[in-house]
Amino acid sequence: MESVFQVRTVGYVRSPIRDRDGAPRQGRDAGLEVSVEILPDYAQCIQGLEGWDLVQVICFMHLASRDARMVHPRGDPANPLTGVFGTRSPARPNPLAVYTSELLGVDGLTLRLRGIDAVDGTPVLDIKPHVRRLDD
Amino acid sequence: MESVFQVRTVGYVRSPIRDRDGAPRQGRDAGLEVSVEILPDYAQCIQGLEGWDLVQVICFMHLASRDARMVHPRGDPANPLTGVFGTRSPARPNPLAVYTSELLGVDGLTLRLRGIDAVDGTPVLDIKPHVRRLDD
Repeated sequence: MESVFQVRTVGYVRSPIRDRDGAPRQGRDAGLEVSVEILPDYAQCIQGLEGWDLVQVICFMHLASRDARMVHPRGDPANPLTGVFGTRSPARPNPLAVYTSELLGVDGLTLRLRGIDAVDGTPVLDIKPHVRRLDD
Repeated sequence: MESVFQVRTVGYVRSPIRDRDGAPRQGRDAGLEVSVEILPDYAQCIQGLEGWDLVQVICFMHLASRDARMVHPRGDPANPLTGVFGTRSPARPNPLAVYTSELLGVDGLTLRLRGIDAVDGTPVLDIKPHVRRLDD
């Protein structure tokens, strides 16, 4: 039985990428610097975050289709149709993206990060320390 | 400005852990085998998933508090209060957990996995291949 939950934006990506056509295929490749603006309601949540070098940033890919069940990986019709859970396509029932990202600095409510290829204005849902023992 | 999105359960964790007191601190430590039952609506989404050894499983920690802004890491009052984004506490505004997990097998709609310490019945929101170049 399907259940539904609400998730809330805790911040937004500020990025030079203005639309999906401008997005490189994967954030880590790009080495792009972006910032995340945390909403004032969540200011306390980032207390102590500056001690971490690598963080996971979970975004809601608000522009992605949620109806896709199968896609051609990397958008190439030569690749056989594959279920979206076997791909990193943003098109998926819950368009969540998990970026492992370098935390370059924290300035007030602004986080400076490298390795996120999301479009400007992408909602951020969560941030966590990346712990190598658990995540690699 | 905060916005709100809906996320839908695509499957459920089936685990020997019956409540939060029975949960080990971190899934990777436990080496626990669990299964994820994919809902029939999402059967197509797992086509081709069996080719991957390591997957990310994103769960919605439905029992966690969403009001916490700061916690004592690892529940130990000796650890100074820290913003939840600087911790792996399940208590956070959007209680999303990202497990890097070994995919042991796929049998119909059932995935067998190692490295997930979620309580039985925990909703699953997404599954993706873990790609070392991007995630480590």
